[in-house]
Amino acid sequence: MFVLGIDPGLSRCGYGAVTGGRRPHAVAAGVLTTPRDEPLPDRLAALDLEIRQLLAELRPDAVAVERVFFQTNVRTAMSVGQASGLVLAAAAQSGAEVAQYTPNEVKQAVAGFGAAPKEQVQRMVQSLLGLTERPRPADAADALALALCHLASAPLARRVARIAGGGR
Amino acid sequence: MFVLGIDPGLSRCGYGAVTGGRRPHAVAAGVLTTPRDEPLPDRLAALDLEIRQLLAELRPDAVAVERVFFQTNVRTAMSVGQASGLVLAAAAQSGAEVAQYTPNEVKQAVAGFGAAPKEQVQRMVQSLLGLTERPRPADAADALALALCHLASAPLARRVARIAGGGR
Repeated sequence: MFVLGIDPGLSRCGYGAVTGGRRPHAVAAGVLTTPRDEPLPDRLAALDLEIRQLLAELRPDAVAVERVFFQTNVRTAMSVGQASGLVLAAAAQSGAEVAQYTPNEVKQAVAGFGAAPKEQVQRMVQSLLGLTERPRPADAADALALALCHLASAPLARRVARIAGGGR
Repeated sequence: MFVLGIDPGLSRCGYGAVTGGRRPHAVAAGVLTTPRDEPLPDRLAALDLEIRQLLAELRPDAVAVERVFFQTNVRTAMSVGQASGLVLAAAAQSGAEVAQYTPNEVKQAVAGFGAAPKEQVQRMVQSLLGLTERPRPADAADALALALCHLASAPLARRVARIAGGGR
Protein backbone atom coordinates (compact mmCIF):
# COMPACT_ATOMS: atom_id res chain seq x y z
CA MET A 1 0.00 0.00 0.00
CA PHE A 2 1.20 3.48 -0.87
CA VAL A 3 0.21 6.09 1.73
CA LEU A 4 0.49 9.87 1.64
CA GLY A 5 0.57 11.54 5.05
CA ILE A 6 -0.50 15.17 5.27
CA ASP A 7 -0.04 17.49 8.25
CA PRO A 8 -2.40 20.31 7.22
CA GLY A 9 -1.52 23.96 7.68
CA LEU A 10 -1.86 27.17 5.73
CA SER A 11 1.64 28.60 6.17
CA ARG A 12 3.28 25.17 6.20
CA CYS A 13 1.60 21.96 5.07
CA GLY A 14 3.80 18.89 5.51
CA TYR A 15 3.54 15.83 3.29
CA GLY A 16 5.29 12.48 3.28
CA ALA A 17 4.66 9.44 1.08
CA VAL A 18 5.56 5.94 2.25
CA THR A 19 5.35 2.60 0.47
CA GLY A 20 4.40 -0.24 2.77
CA GLY A 21 5.67 -3.80 2.82
CA ARG A 22 8.10 -5.73 5.00
CA ARG A 23 10.38 -2.69 5.07
CA PRO A 24 8.46 0.57 4.43
CA HIS A 25 10.38 3.29 2.63
CA ALA A 26 9.87 7.00 2.00
CA VAL A 27 9.11 7.99 -1.59
CA ALA A 28 8.65 11.74 -1.13
CA ALA A 29 8.54 14.27 1.68
CA GLY A 30 8.39 18.02 1.88
CA VAL A 31 6.43 21.09 2.86
CA LEU A 32 3.95 23.16 0.85
CA THR A 33 4.01 26.82 1.87
CA THR A 34 1.86 29.84 1.10
CA PRO A 35 3.08 33.44 1.61
CA ARG A 36 1.79 34.99 4.84
CA ASP A 37 1.28 38.43 3.27
CA GLU A 38 -1.25 37.27 0.64
CA PRO A 39 -5.04 37.34 1.16
CA LEU A 40 -6.51 34.22 2.82
CA PRO A 41 -8.66 33.10 -0.17
CA ASP A 42 -5.61 33.26 -2.50
CA ARG A 43 -3.50 31.25 -0.06
CA LEU A 44 -6.20 28.58 0.30
CA ALA A 45 -6.61 28.49 -3.49
CA ALA A 46 -2.85 28.01 -3.99
CA LEU A 47 -2.67 25.28 -1.33
CA ASP A 48 -5.65 23.50 -2.89
CA LEU A 49 -3.96 23.44 -6.32
CA GLU A 50 -0.69 22.16 -4.85
CA ILE A 51 -2.43 19.40 -2.90
CA ARG A 52 -4.34 18.30 -6.00
CA GLN A 53 -1.12 18.30 -8.04
CA LEU A 54 0.61 16.21 -5.36
CA LEU A 55 -2.28 13.70 -5.35
CA ALA A 56 -2.24 13.51 -9.16
CA GLU A 57 1.53 12.94 -9.24
CA LEU A 58 1.79 10.42 -6.41
CA ARG A 59 -1.60 8.65 -6.80
CA PRO A 60 -1.58 7.25 -3.25
CA ASP A 61 -3.87 4.35 -2.29
CA ALA A 62 -4.58 6.08 1.01
CA VAL A 63 -4.21 9.56 2.49
CA ALA A 64 -3.65 9.95 6.25
CA VAL A 65 -4.48 13.43 7.51
CA GLU A 66 -3.82 14.80 10.99
CA ARG A 67 -7.08 15.32 12.85
CA VAL A 68 -7.27 18.98 13.82
CA PHE A 69 -8.36 20.29 17.19
CA PHE A 70 -8.75 23.71 18.68
CA GLN A 71 -5.50 24.86 20.08
CA THR A 72 -4.76 27.76 22.34
CA ASN A 73 -4.08 29.98 19.33
CA VAL A 74 -7.55 30.47 17.88
CA ARG A 75 -6.35 32.30 14.74
CA THR A 76 -4.03 29.44 13.81
CA ALA A 77 -6.63 26.78 14.63
CA MET A 78 -9.11 28.31 12.15
CA SER A 79 -6.61 28.41 9.27
CA VAL A 80 -5.50 24.85 10.11
CA GLY A 81 -9.18 23.82 10.00
CA GLN A 82 -9.66 25.56 6.65
CA ALA A 83 -6.55 23.88 5.23
CA SER A 84 -7.65 20.47 6.53
CA GLY A 85 -11.07 20.94 4.90
CA LEU A 86 -9.66 21.27 1.42
CA VAL A 87 -7.07 18.52 1.97
CA LEU A 88 -9.81 16.06 3.03
CA ALA A 89 -12.06 17.08 0.11
CA ALA A 90 -9.28 16.76 -2.49
CA ALA A 91 -8.09 13.43 -1.03
CA ALA A 92 -11.60 11.95 -1.11
CA GLN A 93 -12.13 13.21 -4.67
CA SER A 94 -8.89 11.52 -5.77
CA GLY A 95 -10.47 8.16 -4.96
CA ALA A 96 -7.98 7.36 -2.21
CA GLU A 97 -9.01 5.89 1.12
CA VAL A 98 -8.95 8.81 3.60
CA ALA A 99 -8.20 8.43 7.31
CA GLN A 100 -7.65 10.91 10.12
CA TYR A 101 -5.40 10.38 13.13
CA THR A 102 -4.86 12.47 16.23
CA PRO A 103 -1.26 13.47 17.11
CA ASN A 104 -1.45 11.05 20.05
CA GLU A 105 -2.50 8.15 17.84
CA VAL A 106 0.46 8.87 15.54
CA LYS A 107 2.93 9.01 18.44
CA GLN A 108 1.49 5.82 19.90
CA ALA A 109 1.85 4.00 16.57
CA VAL A 110 5.34 5.24 15.69
CA ALA A 111 7.05 5.69 19.06
CA GLY A 112 5.03 3.32 21.23
CA PHE A 113 3.48 5.89 23.53
CA GLY A 114 1.13 8.81 22.96
CA ALA A 115 3.12 11.40 24.87
CA ALA A 116 6.42 10.79 23.04
CA PRO A 117 8.43 14.00 22.48
CA LYS A 118 8.76 15.29 18.91
CA GLU A 119 12.44 14.39 18.69
CA GLN A 120 11.82 10.78 19.63
CA VAL A 121 9.09 10.52 16.97
CA GLN A 122 11.55 11.86 14.40
CA ARG A 123 14.21 9.34 15.43
CA MET A 124 11.66 6.51 15.18
CA VAL A 125 10.56 7.71 11.71
CA GLN A 126 14.21 7.77 10.65
CA SER A 127 14.79 4.26 11.98
CA LEU A 128 11.55 2.75 10.62
CA LEU A 129 12.22 4.17 7.15
CA GLY A 130 15.96 3.38 7.19
CA LEU A 131 16.93 7.01 6.52
CA THR A 132 20.55 8.08 6.94
CA GLU A 133 19.43 11.38 8.50
CA ARG A 134 16.64 12.65 10.74
CA PRO A 135 13.77 13.65 8.39
CA ARG A 136 13.52 17.46 8.12
CA PRO A 137 11.74 19.83 8.34
CA ALA A 138 9.55 18.81 11.28
CA ASP A 139 6.32 19.14 9.24
CA ALA A 140 7.60 16.60 6.69
CA ALA A 141 8.65 14.25 9.51
CA ASP A 142 5.17 14.52 11.05
CA ALA A 143 3.62 13.69 7.68
CA LEU A 144 5.86 10.61 7.27
CA ALA A 145 4.81 9.55 10.78
CA LEU A 146 1.14 9.89 9.76
CA ALA A 147 1.75 7.63 6.75
CA LEU A 148 3.54 5.05 8.96
CA CYS A 149 0.67 5.24 11.46
CA HIS A 150 -1.84 4.45 8.71
CA LEU A 151 0.28 1.55 7.42
CA ALA A 152 0.31 0.13 10.95
CA SER A 153 -3.38 0.72 11.68
CA ALA A 154 -5.10 0.06 8.35
CA PRO A 155 -4.88 -3.77 8.21
CA LEU A 156 -6.46 -4.17 11.65
CA ALA A 157 -9.07 -1.45 10.95
CA ARG A 158 -10.06 -3.26 7.73
CA ARG A 159 -10.36 -6.60 9.53
CA VAL A 160 -12.50 -5.00 12.23
CA ALA A 161 -14.74 -3.39 9.58
CA ARG A 162 -15.04 -6.71 7.75
CA ILE A 163 -16.00 -8.60 10.89
CA ALA A 164 -18.42 -5.84 12.01
CA GLY A 165 -19.95 -5.90 8.50
CA GLY A 166 -20.65 -9.62 8.82
CA GLY A 167 -17.99 -10.75 6.30
CA ARG A 168 -15.02 -12.97 7.04
CA MET B 1 -22.05 43.65 -10.32
CA PHE B 2 -23.21 40.08 -9.75
CA VAL B 3 -22.48 38.79 -6.25
CA LEU B 4 -22.81 35.31 -4.80
CA GLY B 5 -23.19 35.20 -1.02
CA ILE B 6 -22.21 31.98 0.75
CA ASP B 7 -22.94 31.08 4.38
CA PRO B 8 -20.56 28.12 4.79
CA GLY B 9 -21.55 24.98 6.64
CA LEU B 10 -21.11 21.25 6.22
CA SER B 11 -24.66 20.07 6.94
CA ARG B 12 -26.25 23.19 5.42
CA CYS B 13 -24.40 25.68 3.20
CA GLY B 14 -26.58 28.63 2.18
CA TYR B 15 -26.11 30.50 -1.10
CA GLY B 16 -27.78 33.53 -2.61
CA ALA B 17 -26.92 35.40 -5.81
CA VAL B 18 -27.84 39.06 -6.26
CA THR B 19 -27.43 41.38 -9.25
CA GLY B 20 -26.59 44.94 -8.26
CA GLY B 21 -27.83 48.19 -9.77
CA ARG B 22 -30.37 50.82 -8.78
CA ARG B 23 -32.67 48.04 -7.63
CA PRO B 24 -30.81 44.82 -6.73
CA HIS B 25 -32.61 41.57 -7.40
CA ALA B 26 -32.13 37.93 -6.40
CA VAL B 27 -31.12 35.55 -9.17
CA ALA B 28 -30.76 32.35 -7.18
CA ALA B 29 -30.92 31.19 -3.59
CA GLY B 30 -30.86 27.86 -1.85
CA VAL B 31 -29.05 25.49 0.45
CA LEU B 32 -26.46 22.81 -0.32
CA THR B 33 -26.65 19.89 2.10
CA THR B 34 -24.52 16.85 2.83
CA PRO B 35 -25.80 13.78 4.67
CA ARG B 36 -24.79 13.71 8.34
CA ASP B 37 -24.23 9.94 8.37
CA GLU B 38 -21.49 9.94 5.71
CA PRO B 39 -17.75 10.15 6.50
CA LEU B 40 -16.37 13.69 6.84
CA PRO B 41 -13.98 13.51 3.84
CA ASP B 42 -16.82 12.37 1.56
CA ARG B 43 -19.09 15.17 2.77
CA LEU B 44 -16.39 17.79 2.21
CA ALA B 45 -15.66 16.33 -1.24
CA ALA B 46 -19.37 16.50 -2.19
CA LEU B 47 -19.72 20.08 -0.91
CA ASP B 48 -16.60 21.10 -2.83
CA LEU B 49 -18.02 19.72 -6.10
CA GLU B 50 -21.37 21.43 -5.55
CA ILE B 51 -19.73 24.78 -4.77
CA ARG B 52 -17.57 24.54 -7.91
CA GLN B 53 -20.62 23.66 -10.00
CA LEU B 54 -22.50 26.64 -8.56
CA LEU B 55 -19.58 28.98 -9.36
CA ALA B 56 -19.33 27.59 -12.91
CA GLU B 57 -23.08 28.01 -13.51
CA LEU B 58 -23.49 31.47 -11.99
CA ARG B 59 -20.05 32.97 -12.81
CA PRO B 60 -20.33 35.71 -10.16
CA ASP B 61 -18.05 38.79 -10.29
CA ALA B 62 -17.64 38.57 -6.55
CA VAL B 63 -18.20 36.01 -3.79
CA ALA B 64 -19.05 37.20 -0.27
CA VAL B 65 -18.39 34.55 2.39
CA GLU B 66 -19.34 34.73 6.05
CA ARG B 67 -16.24 35.06 8.20
CA VAL B 68 -16.20 32.13 10.61
CA PHE B 69 -15.42 32.35 14.29
CA PHE B 70 -15.21 29.87 17.10
CA GLN B 71 -18.59 29.34 18.59
CA THR B 72 -19.57 27.59 21.74
CA ASN B 73 -20.05 24.33 19.88
CA VAL B 74 -16.47 23.35 19.06
CA ARG B 75 -17.43 20.38 16.86
CA THR B 76 -19.61 22.55 14.63
CA ALA B 77 -17.03 25.34 14.50
CA MET B 78 -14.41 22.98 13.09
CA SER B 79 -16.67 21.67 10.33
CA VAL B 80 -17.77 25.22 9.51
CA GLY B 81 -14.10 26.19 9.28
CA GLN B 82 -13.38 23.22 7.02
CA ALA B 83 -16.34 24.11 4.78
CA SER B 84 -15.29 27.77 4.63
CA GLY B 85 -11.76 26.74 3.63
CA LEU B 86 -12.88 24.98 0.50
CA VAL B 87 -15.47 27.64 -0.34
CA LEU B 88 -12.79 30.38 -0.18
CA ALA B 89 -10.33 28.29 -2.24
CA ALA B 90 -12.89 27.47 -4.94
CA ALA B 91 -14.13 31.08 -5.09
CA ALA B 92 -10.60 32.47 -5.51
CA GLN B 93 -9.81 29.85 -8.18
CA SER B 94 -12.93 30.89 -10.13
CA GLY B 95 -11.36 34.32 -10.66
CA ALA B 96 -14.04 36.13 -8.68
CA GLU B 97 -13.25 38.84 -6.17
CA VAL B 98 -13.55 37.22 -2.72
CA ALA B 99 -14.57 39.08 0.43
CA GLN B 100 -15.39 37.97 3.95
CA TYR B 101 -17.84 39.66 6.30
CA THR B 102 -18.67 39.02 9.93
CA PRO B 103 -22.33 38.42 10.86
CA ASN B 104 -22.33 41.85 12.55
CA GLU B 105 -21.06 43.60 9.41
CA VAL B 106 -23.84 41.93 7.42
CA LYS B 107 -26.54 42.97 9.90
CA GLN B 108 -25.14 46.51 10.01
CA ALA B 109 -25.21 46.79 6.20
CA VAL B 110 -28.63 45.24 5.67
CA ALA B 111 -30.62 46.21 8.76
CA GLY B 112 -28.72 49.30 9.93
CA PHE B 113 -27.42 47.91 13.18
CA GLY B 114 -25.07 45.06 14.04
CA ALA B 115 -27.26 43.46 16.69
CA ALA B 116 -30.39 43.20 14.53
CA PRO B 117 -32.42 40.03 15.19
CA LYS B 118 -32.48 37.37 12.46
CA GLU B 119 -36.13 38.05 11.60
CA GLN B 120 -35.50 41.74 11.01
CA VAL B 121 -32.58 40.91 8.72
CA GLN B 122 -34.86 38.58 6.75
CA ARG B 123 -37.55 41.28 6.43
CA MET B 124 -34.94 43.79 5.22
CA VAL B 125 -33.58 41.29 2.67
CA GLN B 126 -37.16 40.74 1.45
CA SER B 127 -37.74 44.48 1.17
CA LEU B 128 -34.39 45.34 -0.45
CA LEU B 129 -34.83 42.62 -3.08
CA GLY B 130 -38.53 43.31 -3.66
CA LEU B 131 -39.53 39.74 -2.84
CA THR B 132 -43.18 38.88 -2.28
CA GLU B 133 -42.26 36.50 0.57
CA ARG B 134 -39.69 36.30 3.34
CA PRO B 135 -36.67 34.45 1.85
CA ARG B 136 -36.46 30.88 3.17
CA PRO B 137 -34.76 28.84 4.49
CA ALA B 138 -32.77 30.98 6.93
CA ASP B 139 -29.40 29.88 5.46
CA ALA B 140 -30.41 31.14 2.00
CA ALA B 141 -31.65 34.43 3.52
CA ASP B 142 -28.29 34.86 5.28
CA ALA B 143 -26.47 34.26 2.01
CA LEU B 144 -28.62 36.86 0.19
CA ALA B 145 -27.83 39.31 3.03
CA LEU B 146 -24.11 38.61 2.51
CA ALA B 147 -24.42 39.43 -1.18
CA LEU B 148 -26.32 42.66 -0.38
CA CYS B 149 -23.66 43.56 2.19
CA HIS B 150 -20.94 43.19 -0.43
CA LEU B 151 -22.89 45.26 -2.97
CA ALA B 152 -23.17 48.01 -0.36
CA SER B 153 -19.56 47.83 0.83
CA ALA B 154 -17.58 47.08 -2.33
CA PRO B 155 -17.70 50.51 -4.06
CA LEU B 156 -16.36 52.31 -0.98
CA ALA B 157 -13.77 49.59 -0.31
CA ARG B 158 -12.51 49.90 -3.89
CA ARG B 159 -12.24 53.71 -3.63
CA VAL B 160 -10.34 53.37 -0.36
CA ALA B 161 -7.96 50.83 -1.93
CA ARG B 162 -7.42 53.12 -4.96
CA ILE B 163 -6.63 56.15 -2.81
CA ALA B 164 -4.40 54.13 -0.47
CA GLY B 165 -2.61 52.74 -3.55
CA GLY B 166 -1.84 56.27 -4.81
CA GLY B 167 -4.24 56.09 -7.78
CA ARG B 168 -7.23 58.35 -8.38
